Amino acid sequence: MAVYTDVVAEELGAFLAGYDLGELLAYKGIAEGVENSNFLVHTSRGYFILTLYERRVAAEDLPFFLALMEHLHGRGISCPQPVKNKRGEVLGRIASRPAAVVTFLDGMWIRRPSPAHCGALGEALARLHLAGLDFKHSRANALSVDGWRSLYESCSERADEVQPDLKRFLAAELAYLESAWPSKLPQGVIHADLFPDNVFFLGNKLSGLIDFYFACTDTLAYDVAICLNAWCFESDHSYNVTKGRGLLQAYAQVRKLSHEERDALPLLARGAALRFLLTRLVDWFDVPPGALVRPKDPFEYYRKLRFHQAIGSARDYGIEQ
Amino acid sequence: MAVYTDVVAEELGAFLAGYDLGELLAYKGIAEGVENSNFLVHTSRGYFILTLYERRVAAEDLPFFLALMEHLHGRGISCPQPVKNKRGEVLGRIASRPAAVVTFLDGMWIRRPSPAHCGALGEALARLHLAGLDFKHSRANALSVDGWRSLYESCSERADEVQPDLKRFLAAELAYLESAWPSKLPQGVIHADLFPDNVFFLGNKLSGLIDFYFACTDTLAYDVAICLNAWCFESDHSYNVTKGRGLLQAYAQVRKLSHEERDALPLLARGAALRFLLTRLVDWFDVPPGALVRPKDPFEYYRKLRFHQAIGSARDYGIEQ
Repeated sequence: MAVYTDVVAEELGAFLAGYDLGELLAYKGIAEGVENSNFLVHTSRGYFILTLYERRVAAEDLPFFLALMEHLHGRGISCPQPVKNKRGEVLGRIASRPAAVVTFLDGMWIRRPSPAHCGALGEALARLHLAGLDFKHSRANALSVDGWRSLYESCSERADEVQPDLKRFLAAELAYLESAWPSKLPQGVIHADLFPDNVFFLGNKLSGLIDFYFACTDTLAYDVAICLNAWCFESDHSYNVTKGRGLLQAYAQVRKLSHEERDALPLLARGAALRFLLTRLVDWFDVPPGALVRPKDPFEYYRKLRFHQAIGSARDYGIEQ
Repeated sequence: MAVYTDVVAEELGAFLAGYDLGELLAYKGIAEGVENSNFLVHTSRGYFILTLYERRVAAEDLPFFLALMEHLHGRGISCPQPVKNKRGEVLGRIASRPAAVVTFLDGMWIRRPSPAHCGALGEALARLHLAGLDFKHSRANALSVDGWRSLYESCSERADEVQPDLKRFLAAELAYLESAWPSKLPQGVIHADLFPDNVFFLGNKLSGLIDFYFACTDTLAYDVAICLNAWCFESDHSYNVTKGRGLLQAYAQVRKLSHEERDALPLLARGAALRFLLTRLVDWFDVPPGALVRPKDPFEYYRKLRFHQAIGSARDYGIEQ
């Protein structure tokens, strides 16, 4: 959570002159987003978010993300709407970086989601999946099963520093998932990172979804599995079946899960847990000594993965078969 | 520039229920202020800044700072206005820290002030000094001449790492300033840290002053000397006499400088340069190896101090004698 790039008032004024946003009145760097620099911008037309895309986001993917937000917004999904400049473009450039202006979304993210919040999330996720069905662009998921082996290779040598015998554990899990991963489940646009900090609420009412910078084309039920991992465990790593049931039932009321999707849930949840375990391990070893920013604890996802391995069937998540 | 303390939506909602600010709609941690955590807060009544005071600000000084902002705002100075809670208090507590809500001020700070900006700053500084004359509280300046020796002692041993022979240079300057420092010049409330990032502009028009957390009771002309240092040097450390003249003339049109104050300016400017040189040296050596935040370069103030030592009279700053 940082602002990586400084933006000077004069250069922001010049940048915004290319938009129909009126006069620049104020802007503040905001501590939001791990990958990019974000500014809250006040103009005579209102409040907006300016995002400068830093090196970790591939510039060639930006048109996909921005077109997706526009598409979803047009389908009634509450998410930031990219603002077009006077030439009709949503992608601009400031401070030597690709940049976009999006509308400001009210709402706050919930540190400890209740079952009601999980239900609202499940409903919103299903609406998102339906709204994405006629989106015409596609983007491969670099962080799905095909991408895990290279992540494993870049962190496995030091994995045992985090947890005894973790390297062997990861190797076995990876081999199993590579052989068993389902390929015929319904595909579409998935958010792929719909953690609580990317979902805004006003009270118990979900007010919007943000941060589409991992969105891609992949198995829809895999997105559900990511959310089960991100929303339905307690801080002691125990699974809360009331939250799981809330999420899954609300999802199914908008978009029914097929038998194949339901049966695959434990496997998809293992894959989702492995994906975050691997990326967190990579980040864990990537931090320079003495750095002020502490990466997220990989151990949390090791515990979740162990839970999913021990699951009997999708029923254990709270789903009705 | 960081947010040191996380604030949870539920706790912010509960905190704001003590104010007449309507419903909490959104909040963002903002990268502003080196000492405190700041949040931009959107409620149904508008936009506000919430500041959580971290350990570097003495809690016993907070009533002074907040009362001063209230006083100055009441005298027509454009600065953040502390918002009273339902019990009529401006100082609250959230996340185990003292905290205050102030009004949001439009405007942006100028990275490269022009002579016109320096003129606007000079006028605002004089208005601030006049508006503070009937402020009934006082606070000693811990970072004036009486505080420099202890700063010197905590950084002098390593000073030569930054610049050869710097320790001896500092010792001589400190001894001279301690013996020559004026004590009979007009006193009052000074801002004491009115650097460009604490002064907001809309175009060339000054829109407000912020960050009163170094404000204290001290020699008014010392505040002018701090601003000469902060506003009138170029990035190559050369003094820009056009900017200096602009600042001093605009100041004098609102509050005339006495002959004694004008004559003391070179000495006060040396003191101001030494103060920032010393605190920057302390911060420079205080940073843990590998830290992401780089402290401000002390060398800049060494160069400024050398300039003031070589000055013939206050006329060299651009003032008319």
